[in-house]
Amino acid sequence: MAQPDTTGQQSASVEKITGYVVGVDIGGTNLRIALADMTGTVIAKSLSSTIGVRGPDAVIAVIKDSVQQLIEETPAPHGPLQAIAAGAPGITDVDAGIVIATSYLMGWRDVPLGPMLEDVLKVPVMVDNDVNLAAVGEHWQGVAKGVNDFVFIGIGTGVGGSIMLNGAPFRGTHWSAGEIGYMLLPETNGFQTKPGEPGALEDLIGGEGIKAQWRRIWRVDKTTLPQYLSATQIFDYALSGDALAQSVLQQTALTLSHTIYNINLILNCPLFVLGGGVGVHPALRNATEENLARMQMRGEPQLAISSLGVDAQVAGAVHQALAAAAKLVSPSVR
Amino acid sequence: MAQPDTTGQQSASVEKITGYVVGVDIGGTNLRIALADMTGTVIAKSLSSTIGVRGPDAVIAVIKDSVQQLIEETPAPHGPLQAIAAGAPGITDVDAGIVIATSYLMGWRDVPLGPMLEDVLKVPVMVDNDVNLAAVGEHWQGVAKGVNDFVFIGIGTGVGGSIMLNGAPFRGTHWSAGEIGYMLLPETNGFQTKPGEPGALEDLIGGEGIKAQWRRIWRVDKTTLPQYLSATQIFDYALSGDALAQSVLQQTALTLSHTIYNINLILNCPLFVLGGGVGVHPALRNATEENLARMQMRGEPQLAISSLGVDAQVAGAVHQALAAAAKLVSPSVR
Repeated sequence: MAQPDTTGQQSASVEKITGYVVGVDIGGTNLRIALADMTGTVIAKSLSSTIGVRGPDAVIAVIKDSVQQLIEETPAPHGPLQAIAAGAPGITDVDAGIVIATSYLMGWRDVPLGPMLEDVLKVPVMVDNDVNLAAVGEHWQGVAKGVNDFVFIGIGTGVGGSIMLNGAPFRGTHWSAGEIGYMLLPETNGFQTKPGEPGALEDLIGGEGIKAQWRRIWRVDKTTLPQYLSATQIFDYALSGDALAQSVLQQTALTLSHTIYNINLILNCPLFVLGGGVGVHPALRNATEENLARMQMRGEPQLAISSLGVDAQVAGAVHQALAAAAKLVSPSVR
Repeated sequence: MAQPDTTGQQSASVEKITGYVVGVDIGGTNLRIALADMTGTVIAKSLSSTIGVRGPDAVIAVIKDSVQQLIEETPAPHGPLQAIAAGAPGITDVDAGIVIATSYLMGWRDVPLGPMLEDVLKVPVMVDNDVNLAAVGEHWQGVAKGVNDFVFIGIGTGVGGSIMLNGAPFRGTHWSAGEIGYMLLPETNGFQTKPGEPGALEDLIGGEGIKAQWRRIWRVDKTTLPQYLSATQIFDYALSGDALAQSVLQQTALTLSHTIYNINLILNCPLFVLGGGVGVHPALRNATEENLARMQMRGEPQLAISSLGVDAQVAGAVHQALAAAAKLVSPSVR
């Protein structure tokens, strides 16, 4: 395996070699791929569905086909493929390239994604947790540019975090740092702590948890809205004045503010970045910020929405692929 | 101000210069001082009471007298005093030497302890949060020797934490990293979050909180023990079989295990060290470890009792004073 850049200190651009790098974001719904030149400029992107595509072999086959298609469709060839970085939605051993566990939605256990991709694509591969890559992307090109210590909170179907310290993801002894979806809070129901099941916090403020909140309190005499709505639809209706939707938004924001409060007690970081399909909703950010202001925190952190949005992971992957390619040129660089 | 060693990487011993360093631990009850030679070997120690001694000027006067007495009583003089490090029970700006805030028990606000001590003692002074110094002590000479990432949880009258990353305290943007006494958990009462008041967690499992737990559930028909006991007495009686004392021990251990669980989600550290007068009780450690084992954590961390005990802070202070003295010889060392 190529050793990834874990310092974030060096420039991501590799001027000495020509060719491409590829960044891959494996999501529960979408597979996003970006082909970039060695300065990190994205030349082409592809988006495909992973609905029904769950097994590692099937996902790798889609990645291989998509990468080849992107390269073939590129008008002016710049040289060979140099390196790939891929983000998986789960705890990942970055040294060995093994996805140790993905969420209950995907169910991967100890998948050697890095070696498998190297085998198929014949270039150095770096794999990491997708939230870590999103945080790297925001640090490289997004809202966290210039901020070396921050926390990225991704809220999509579930909830995950990335702890960025000194400009790089802090991964922990068993690669599970930032797994905040299991956090215990005053409002979490009991103490759900089993790996492979939704975490206690995620069960409340992940996309699925927010939908469940809505279904629990929905009554035909309380709202004109339907019983089945997505989390972002609920937040949209909260903004347009539905009282029941507003109560779900407020409860979600309160729980998120308690989450940030607890993390800030431990790390005292100046910036929290909200990402993921649900996390980027402005109504959630604003309501959470109002709660945080009431909590009298020491050095209240700034709360920002991911500026790269759905492209944050793939941007971070391009950055890490460039770093892996840089290792080929001068392996001593750390 | 002398810049302290914040890396912990260099040897703490300073062979090139002769003389002494002093480590000071300012506690809510006791003031501990150690005089050490330039290899870090403690030559003499003093212990005095801080009961009724609350103002910074009064505390500094006691420190000055105690240091002079220790030096005068030392049989074979080794040379001049080179540096002092002092730990204060509160959030401390290590760069400026300012104690920003101590707990509700001591009430200091923005006290320039470092400059004040330098003024009186005429040597470089380093000041830090006392829990950070305890963690540095355990890393240097205690149970965390060789472990670069760990969390020290100090439970005395209150609750504080130190986040040791890469062998040094991680202090946060506003010097308040590790202030876990305010953590919100399923069992915390409401959302007490005001600086200057006991934190939500501390209110439950700090020494005062444990005493209050006991008083709340005490009834004359439930136990033969008195209504007013210290936290360690309650734990002692739990070990000797009192059922009511056991319920307080179990509740405290459950809450502590949830605290460790939440911190571990964020940092995934291999070791938690329990310190402080209440935290070192073996009954608490054992009951907490049993709870953690039931929680199915990914990479369950080791739970160890501080091996330096009440001397952990002063040992860490000696280490940091040696580092401050080393700066005098080669200021470029970091």
